[in-house]
Amino acid sequence: MGRWEPDAAGRLQQAALELFGQRGYEQTTVAEIAERAGLTERTFFRHFADKREVLFRGSEELQRLIVGGVDDAPASATPIEAIANGLRAADAIFDAERRPHSLKRRSVIEANPELQERELIKLATLAAVLADALRRRGVEDSAARLTADAGIAVFRFAFERWQRDADQRFEDAVQDGVERLRALARA
Amino acid sequence: MGRWEPDAAGRLQQAALELFGQRGYEQTTVAEIAERAGLTERTFFRHFADKREVLFRGSEELQRLIVGGVDDAPASATPIEAIANGLRAADAIFDAERRPHSLKRRSVIEANPELQERELIKLATLAAVLADALRRRGVEDSAARLTADAGIAVFRFAFERWQRDADQRFEDAVQDGVERLRALARA
Repeated sequence: MGRWEPDAAGRLQQAALELFGQRGYEQTTVAEIAERAGLTERTFFRHFADKREVLFRGSEELQRLIVGGVDDAPASATPIEAIANGLRAADAIFDAERRPHSLKRRSVIEANPELQERELIKLATLAAVLADALRRRGVEDSAARLTADAGIAVFRFAFERWQRDADQRFEDAVQDGVERLRALARA
Repeated sequence: MGRWEPDAAGRLQQAALELFGQRGYEQTTVAEIAERAGLTERTFFRHFADKREVLFRGSEELQRLIVGGVDDAPASATPIEAIANGLRAADAIFDAERRPHSLKRRSVIEANPELQERELIKLATLAAVLADALRRRGVEDSAARLTADAGIAVFRFAFERWQRDADQRFEDAVQDGVERLRALARA
């Protein structure tokens, strides 16, 4: 999703974000989203299980990229370096073109507790698969979980920074987050 | 809640945990919980908004203790030291007497996605109030959030450790978690 692809799923997502922004998430129906995208409800449900999922399209890809980046880290990388390598791989998704979409999505999610819960679940899932990836590298269980959770802290820091600052590259924000984590742990 | 107090709320909570363990969370009604506790449904709803909340009794007290511990840290404490001081204060809740209750509660929550979501929300709330507590100490916003999130990683580590090991004091597990965070960030 580095480039915006105007495929059916992408059009539905764009239409949904517009409508959620204009009318509110609760007030928007799947039928309206499909209509705005020039597609049918049946097509909507071929791509998304429900209205909520249209906002979480791409989270599997994000997870796959990040875990791939951990797996691809050199064998000599420490656990936190491997996690950083994983998080930096998300740069392929979080580019400048993606930012306006991401900000719209964020304002929809912030207005709705049910969506915030969903976001928390996605982050918890990411933490779990990061811990798995570290265990595959031979990291002991409790160290793997602690490092993965610290990695989530860095992810949140980097994501926030990237969303806020139009000149910020995501991978640089990850690097800054890791350095700040190192500094706060030294203090 | 350091000592088990057989007050109405405590009896309802104990009855609920027994029933959830025996019949499953979904299959247990508020009427059954009240009956098992020798109380009325009306009494149940004086103490808890719904069936789910009976499992999250004490989370406000936990939050209050931890934030109090951050506020009470000496002015010279670094942000991570202040967080550690806060987390150690939860030792007053997580004592040996509490462990069997905590383990029963955990198995109920692990069997139910809705309850897992609730648990994630409570942790996210804790992260937010920890960041607030750091900001009150003059810590800059993004550093406050990153340190608070790293603190949640330590909390999860310590809680897991305390639940697993009957000889483990919670405050020692916090200290170990902070030391491991320092070590992983140095690596």
